[in-house]
Amino acid sequence: MDQNRLRELLEQVKEGAMDVNAALERMRHLPFEDLGFAKVDHHRELRHGMPEVVLAKGKTPQQVAAIAERLLENSANVLITRADPACAAEVERQCPGAEYFPLSGTLRFWRERTIQGKGIIAVVSAGTSDIFVAEEAQVTAETMGNRVDTVHDIGVAGIHRLMHNRERLTAARVVVVCAGMEGALPSAVGGLVSCPVIAVPTSVGYGASFHGLAALLGMLNSCASNVTVVNIDNGFGAGYVASLINRL
Amino acid sequence: MDQNRLRELLEQVKEGAMDVNAALERMRHLPFEDLGFAKVDHHRELRHGMPEVVLAKGKTPQQVAAIAERLLENSANVLITRADPACAAEVERQCPGAEYFPLSGTLRFWRERTIQGKGIIAVVSAGTSDIFVAEEAQVTAETMGNRVDTVHDIGVAGIHRLMHNRERLTAARVVVVCAGMEGALPSAVGGLVSCPVIAVPTSVGYGASFHGLAALLGMLNSCASNVTVVNIDNGFGAGYVASLINRL
Amino acid sequence: MDQNRLRELLEQVKEGAMDVNAALERMRHLPFEDLGFAKVDHHRELRHGMPEVVLAKGKTPQQVAAIAERLLENSANVLITRADPACAAEVERQCPGAEYFPLSGTLRFWRERTIQGKGIIAVVSAGTSDIFVAEEAQVTAETMGNRVDTVHDIGVAGIHRLMHNRERLTAARVVVVCAGMEGALPSAVGGLVSCPVIAVPTSVGYGASFHGLAALLGMLNSCASNVTVVNIDNGFGAGYVASLINRL
Amino acid sequence: MDQNRLRELLEQVKEGAMDVNAALERMRHLPFEDLGFAKVDHHRELRHGMPEVVLAKGKTPQQVAAIAERLLENSANVLITRADPACAAEVERQCPGAEYFPLSGTLRFWRERTIQGKGIIAVVSAGTSDIFVAEEAQVTAETMGNRVDTVHDIGVAGIHRLMHNRERLTAARVVVVCAGMEGALPSAVGGLVSCPVIAVPTSVGYGASFHGLAALLGMLNSCASNVTVVNIDNGFGAGYVASLINRL
Amino acid sequence: MDQNRLRELLEQVKEGAMDVNAALERMRHLPFEDLGFAKVDHHRELRHGMPEVVLAKGKTPQQVAAIAERLLENSANVLITRADPACAAEVERQCPGAEYFPLSGTLRFWRERTIQGKGIIAVVSAGTSDIFVAEEAQVTAETMGNRVDTVHDIGVAGIHRLMHNRERLTAARVVVVCAGMEGALPSAVGGLVSCPVIAVPTSVGYGASFHGLAALLGMLNSCASNVTVVNIDNGFGAGYVASLINRL
Amino acid sequence: MDQNRLRELLEQVKEGAMDVNAALERMRHLPFEDLGFAKVDHHRELRHGMPEVVLAKGKTPQQVAAIAERLLENSANVLITRADPACAAEVERQCPGAEYFPLSGTLRFWRERTIQGKGIIAVVSAGTSDIFVAEEAQVTAETMGNRVDTVHDIGVAGIHRLMHNRERLTAARVVVVCAGMEGALPSAVGGLVSCPVIAVPTSVGYGASFHGLAALLGMLNSCASNVTVVNIDNGFGAGYVASLINRL
Amino acid sequence: MDQNRLRELLEQVKEGAMDVNAALERMRHLPFEDLGFAKVDHHRELRHGMPEVVLAKGKTPQQVAAIAERLLENSANVLITRADPACAAEVERQCPGAEYFPLSGTLRFWRERTIQGKGIIAVVSAGTSDIFVAEEAQVTAETMGNRVDTVHDIGVAGIHRLMHNRERLTAARVVVVCAGMEGALPSAVGGLVSCPVIAVPTSVGYGASFHGLAALLGMLNSCASNVTVVNIDNGFGAGYVASLINRL
Amino acid sequence: MDQNRLRELLEQVKEGAMDVNAALERMRHLPFEDLGFAKVDHHRELRHGMPEVVLAKGKTPQQVAAIAERLLENSANVLITRADPACAAEVERQCPGAEYFPLSGTLRFWRERTIQGKGIIAVVSAGTSDIFVAEEAQVTAETMGNRVDTVHDIGVAGIHRLMHNRERLTAARVVVVCAGMEGALPSAVGGLVSCPVIAVPTSVGYGASFHGLAALLGMLNSCASNVTVVNIDNGFGAGYVASLINRL
Repeated sequence: MDQNRLRELLEQVKEGAMDVNAALERMRHLPFEDLGFAKVDHHRELRHGMPEVVLAKGKTPQQVAAIAERLLENSANVLITRADPACAAEVERQCPGAEYFPLSGTLRFWRERTIQGKGIIAVVSAGTSDIFVAEEAQVTAETMGNRVDTVHDIGVAGIHRLMHNRERLTAARVVVVCAGMEGALPSAVGGLVSCPVIAVPTSVGYGASFHGLAALLGMLNSCASNVTVVNIDNGFGAGYVASLINRL
Repeated sequence: MDQNRLRELLEQVKEGAMDVNAALERMRHLPFEDLGFAKVDHHRELRHGMPEVVLAKGKTPQQVAAIAERLLENSANVLITRADPACAAEVERQCPGAEYFPLSGTLRFWRERTIQGKGIIAVVSAGTSDIFVAEEAQVTAETMGNRVDTVHDIGVAGIHRLMHNRERLTAARVVVVCAGMEGALPSAVGGLVSCPVIAVPTSVGYGASFHGLAALLGMLNSCASNVTVVNIDNGFGAGYVASLINRL
Repeated sequence: MDQNRLRELLEQVKEGAMDVNAALERMRHLPFEDLGFAKVDHHRELRHGMPEVVLAKGKTPQQVAAIAERLLENSANVLITRADPACAAEVERQCPGAEYFPLSGTLRFWRERTIQGKGIIAVVSAGTSDIFVAEEAQVTAETMGNRVDTVHDIGVAGIHRLMHNRERLTAARVVVVCAGMEGALPSAVGGLVSCPVIAVPTSVGYGASFHGLAALLGMLNSCASNVTVVNIDNGFGAGYVASLINRL
Repeated sequence: MDQNRLRELLEQVKEGAMDVNAALERMRHLPFEDLGFAKVDHHRELRHGMPEVVLAKGKTPQQVAAIAERLLENSANVLITRADPACAAEVERQCPGAEYFPLSGTLRFWRERTIQGKGIIAVVSAGTSDIFVAEEAQVTAETMGNRVDTVHDIGVAGIHRLMHNRERLTAARVVVVCAGMEGALPSAVGGLVSCPVIAVPTSVGYGASFHGLAALLGMLNSCASNVTVVNIDNGFGAGYVASLINRL
Repeated sequence: MDQNRLRELLEQVKEGAMDVNAALERMRHLPFEDLGFAKVDHHRELRHGMPEVVLAKGKTPQQVAAIAERLLENSANVLITRADPACAAEVERQCPGAEYFPLSGTLRFWRERTIQGKGIIAVVSAGTSDIFVAEEAQVTAETMGNRVDTVHDIGVAGIHRLMHNRERLTAARVVVVCAGMEGALPSAVGGLVSCPVIAVPTSVGYGASFHGLAALLGMLNSCASNVTVVNIDNGFGAGYVASLINRL
Repeated sequence: MDQNRLRELLEQVKEGAMDVNAALERMRHLPFEDLGFAKVDHHRELRHGMPEVVLAKGKTPQQVAAIAERLLENSANVLITRADPACAAEVERQCPGAEYFPLSGTLRFWRERTIQGKGIIAVVSAGTSDIFVAEEAQVTAETMGNRVDTVHDIGVAGIHRLMHNRERLTAARVVVVCAGMEGALPSAVGGLVSCPVIAVPTSVGYGASFHGLAALLGMLNSCASNVTVVNIDNGFGAGYVASLINRL
Repeated sequence: MDQNRLRELLEQVKEGAMDVNAALERMRHLPFEDLGFAKVDHHRELRHGMPEVVLAKGKTPQQVAAIAERLLENSANVLITRADPACAAEVERQCPGAEYFPLSGTLRFWRERTIQGKGIIAVVSAGTSDIFVAEEAQVTAETMGNRVDTVHDIGVAGIHRLMHNRERLTAARVVVVCAGMEGALPSAVGGLVSCPVIAVPTSVGYGASFHGLAALLGMLNSCASNVTVVNIDNGFGAGYVASLINRL
Repeated sequence: MDQNRLRELLEQVKEGAMDVNAALERMRHLPFEDLGFAKVDHHRELRHGMPEVVLAKGKTPQQVAAIAERLLENSANVLITRADPACAAEVERQCPGAEYFPLSGTLRFWRERTIQGKGIIAVVSAGTSDIFVAEEAQVTAETMGNRVDTVHDIGVAGIHRLMHNRERLTAARVVVVCAGMEGALPSAVGGLVSCPVIAVPTSVGYGASFHGLAALLGMLNSCASNVTVVNIDNGFGAGYVASLINRL
């Protein structure tokens, strides 16, 4: 496409419809706009075919709200992750219509709800304490246009629970598995299903869990070959990649 | 399917065609066989629709050869990873017909070559020194029935090289990116393409690369949302998951 | 017992059968003897009711052989761990009658074979590559007078293999589980059995396994409550504690 | 037992007392029930012969109280660990009758007090600051039906204190040792007693203690062979395994 | 110069204009003065040709204000870094005339504004969340007498943004690049420009970013040869060295 | 002395002045007393010839006050370290007469002030921010009966300051050096003086100082041979060992 | 320049001297050529004004020689780093005329020796064992066209040696400081000179030096503000950046 | 003394016996000489009153021999540490008369054997495998003019061995304790003696000992207040500081 616009431009130059300086100028004019503190890239939706996403952590509520407002002018769906209640309140004040998930701190504007994924994305958590991450994955995948099936509290220390849910897992086209502590669930799930498994280590645990490091290392060393890994607590990333795969 | 076989069994019990003890015995009879030191699982091909894979590292050449021999009786394609030349020689002695890739230590029996992947898998390396990992990913994906396009030496410190190959990358359905040192290439590729990117940190580097830890951490923290990560030097895992995704 | 010997001594002093200086001297005379470079403690067998054990690593073959020779004068059974072939050869030269297990480097003199354990100790490995550690646990437990049941290659990525061996596991009074890579097997086994599980992380793996650290952390964070952990590759320690428990 | 129920089922199918679909349904009907956010497993008591345990950390007071309420319907004894005062208050509000130990944050319902352990479990702490962990081990072991002997403040830098308590330690059937800082006490205790020692590193210390890592590493490297280790501050796990051993 | 003052002194001794004891005394009299808790070194301005700098972190507001007051007697420009609002308020109370930058906590007295740098220093940030570090670099470089061009939010996952700003980057004589998460931007910038690049890892991120460690390791392993690195979040250091280079 | 008391005891047994049971009992009666939560060891003063010391961290104000009260019955001098203001207030309430140093949180009862050290102990800090640790060392050494000379803010980045204080350093019999950040001062001091240098890494710094780890590693690797190291922020330990050395 | 070539191209299109497709083709034709396993970038010399550099580590001698041969066709000077003797021999065989420095494994083709740096680059090492890194920096800086002054063995534990060389250091325009163990020298040098200091941690040391990590952390935490850091043992990077600065 | 020489110089200048330039020259003439690759500092013996020491590791045998030869011209005693047999042979070839200790790789020229220490230095090892470090400490302390008492193999897991040697330990003026694995011995020894204890972690162990890190952390966190620590395997440093203390 860029290819085509470039060709068009060159044709205009050739035909004298545009002079060289103007052409140079146009070629430099890339499709994003400047808010001063953040380059908002409206074309990301085109490039990735996905709604806009804002990571609230590390930004002030005002910054988040300003970015959200600008994004909503061009995007039907906007997802804001890691928003604490104060941030959520500020965004809601400036841009009404969001849905807030306090467990994970996710805030979404979901105005366009076409199903785009071809199958089901299963989002699994090992324990009750891991749900805050699983929720981020679930909300992300839903907002990206997928049917999501969530299964909670099926950790490996009670394998019969896992086996009990085997059919729901094998019915999925992609599985997201969230687990803290020893992080063993993705390996067990990976052995049960034949589709891609995206493992999300969570910071759940204490002592030698080192804030999710134990789970992260466990998942990276999974002996199940169909497992890939994202950052600790990165439910969003897992839901995002699962959505990409489910559209294929 | 297990479901069906179970139902069948119960029907036979109901009809008196099989007695209870025999039924119990059959239900316990699972489809794998015992070599003494390793349970060979012939059904993995069914479950995952993939050839058999053996990790040679940590096994003696004799163990690897024995496993390979048994697998070849039931599988058209067998992939042996991390085989040093001595191991490769022993396998070849017992089971002729393999192809050996010394850079990565991959050995493959590739007797069934149907293309099963729907698109192209791009396998990218940041530098010449990362090719030993990229090769493992490439051979894996090929043997799994995919068309593979390899692009080497396009690290981020020379961004024009990356831009030059942009079209080949965007033509792929999945991209595998192998990079050591700072491991920045997956983020840059992830920003260029809209498909899933599987990042493989390599142990290439010295000093504060800590045998691939720097690259691993970099990739886990990628600001591109379409990136997932596998273990350091795990070209096989990346090729395997890429193949799963490419079949969807 | 020391209590009694002390009382006896005091009685002798009281009765004048021993003078004060001699008594002081005797009280200082503790039951070990001095080889110059190592205090050999013959009473350890009494205290712990267990054969003598020598860690060969970090000692010269000559040192190991000298210690072994002295121990064999007082102990029926002697176990030497981490002995490389050169060490094993030197010990055999000076003290014939040992049995050598090259995979784990264990060397044992097993002259007294009474069964002392009340039940069965199951020694489990996740993969073929973990057997070198499992063997150390097995040989230790056997030499300590236990019936041992070994089950290899039942890692969590193939849960049906684990389920298939469930009865053998539940038949054990203690289970030792050896696993490298993600080290998830102890959690799964811990959920299946109700007896104590001793987890042994192995150094099997590569990259982010960090020589067994990933497995170690995973096991320490096990969500199964009946799991305790020993050092990486410490099959001996696991077999030893399992033996202690099995005698209770 | 499952074996027997299965056989019974098959007999009923054979005799026509149950049709195939009903049998399949029953076989799928596993003994746990779904609260939505957590699978409560009433059969764990059967499997492990132990009261139910809830880890409060990472759950809201409401979630903990709801789980406790459901568990108390089927279990005489329920143990809630890592409950802060707010959580304890909420549980007490919904389910009166608990005993709260604020130092360790343990909350227990102890309605069935039969002694089930065969001997004494000694719970030892190295310093006054480690008692918060020792208390968790002690309460766990008591609630599991054991006689517990606690010995505090006998760290290795005052060996005469340890020697002074030698007889109490040797009288135990299992010893739990809690220590922070250098974590040396388990080795010293391990050398004095001949029974299994369960070492619990505590997060007590500062600077290079790295929140218990120093103690953890020390214990994993213990030169006493009868020592196994649980996670940092995991008094519960130590008390639990000690209880399992003490029932053997 | 010291050389010259020493020669002068010796000349005076030779000529009898100064006696030996006085000379010894003078030679010991170094140019700093003692506040009790901190040696204020007025000559640093001479030695480095730079304003005085105070790190407020770890000092009480009163200590900072006292040091600032003394420094302002001899220096036109004083820079105080890592000052929280309370500290800033106390300094302003005692020494009016400062400018406070709350994002980075920088406080400056900028009374002498001669441009001393020969070219432009570009200060670049990868994301909005990194600006708090970039601001510290910017304020430092400005106060040191440089023209500064700041470019925010041009991380590698959107390479076209980086390319769009290529000319501003290549116009600079030194570039400071602040990035958290995977820390890949310095490599990409380093490949675009031919001048020295000073990389500042920021603590922005979560999970496996380990408070900036991932970015730090990434930058140290940069495959761009023109990159050097300073401590995590050390915007001041980067601005300082950039100023030194820009004066050459 | 124990030797002598034992001999005396045996003589009494021999002479019939004490019966065997009483002798056994006396031999078991060791000189410490039981507060329930802490064994207070009055003989430590005899053994080490030093006042009693209490680490307040990890104990409640009430526990600290109770221990202090008991200790003051037998010891002239009591030192309480890491006491926050609330703890200090509670101790003062129960046991008036203490002196509180809020910077380091040290509380001392100093009723016996004989000088026992043979020379001067120099306590040096690299920067103003390190004084909180240096103060703990200083107060400890003073209370232990030493003349202390403190020199602050002479870090290696201003070597002339260090050289300026060279004579005070060489006048000392032992030097304690407290430094955070790069922790380089002990090496420089170690090269200037010929007496033992005790290095105390402090947690001062940010980013890659990792709470004192950088300074700790630096000091352990000092190329000055006369340097030994204590834990991060352990001013007390440094002052204590310096006192032991200064009495020799 | 690219700008100009682009304008020229557009002018030709405008004038009909080149058709659109040819123009598009030319624009895609970037100035590097494909060796199959490595993109050789002849324009790097233009972009950076520096000779070509090859990192031999991780490449076969044959790969290095092939790259060198191609580079020498376009570049007067080629620098090969981390070349072991076998690699050096192979390169010399194919491309005579190189100079080999075995201590650092540096190989250079130095056919164009114009001095391009404006001042002197001082390359300093803390100890004899650090020279292998300093040599890499020195050879790099020389080949880049600089006058280099090397000063060895002036570590901080002998400060008078450092002071003795003060004048040589202050005469330099940039200083490269190589140090292992505690890595304190850059701070001390940084305090003496007012120019930029590039610190190179070396892997020299043992035990808690952790292969250069201690030195690296020390340098990153330097309290001297004019210090930036490169990777462990990266003498090349330090020499390269020093050369860039010295040309300004 | 430098003070005096300086005064003398100034007097000569005053009296005209020396002109200013000559005085400047003399003041710059510091007492070390230049071998090209190492500044040999003959005055270190004066400053520290100790023999010369050379760390052979990281130097070629030729470099070590050259340094040794030069040192022996001015020093009666020279100690070379970490010399492998090849290095030892080369030194012996050039400078006959050395004594070689192959376990620790220590080589000494001991021509002046006056006893300078006031008491006994005890050098203790926890196990046979730690002797290689203890030997380095012992040889160092002997060569520095001390009476040394060595006690081997008294680790904490056999406390009666330690108690058995209590008197030898309390007879010492300083104690050096070498221990690997959990590194608990220094705490236990520290509690028994009242003199300074220098702890040397050794790299003995495997798995989670992480090459001595576990022992190092344990010792830094010792709850015995009289313990300071040196680098892993640094027997020399411990022996050196013990010698300094023993001369006081």
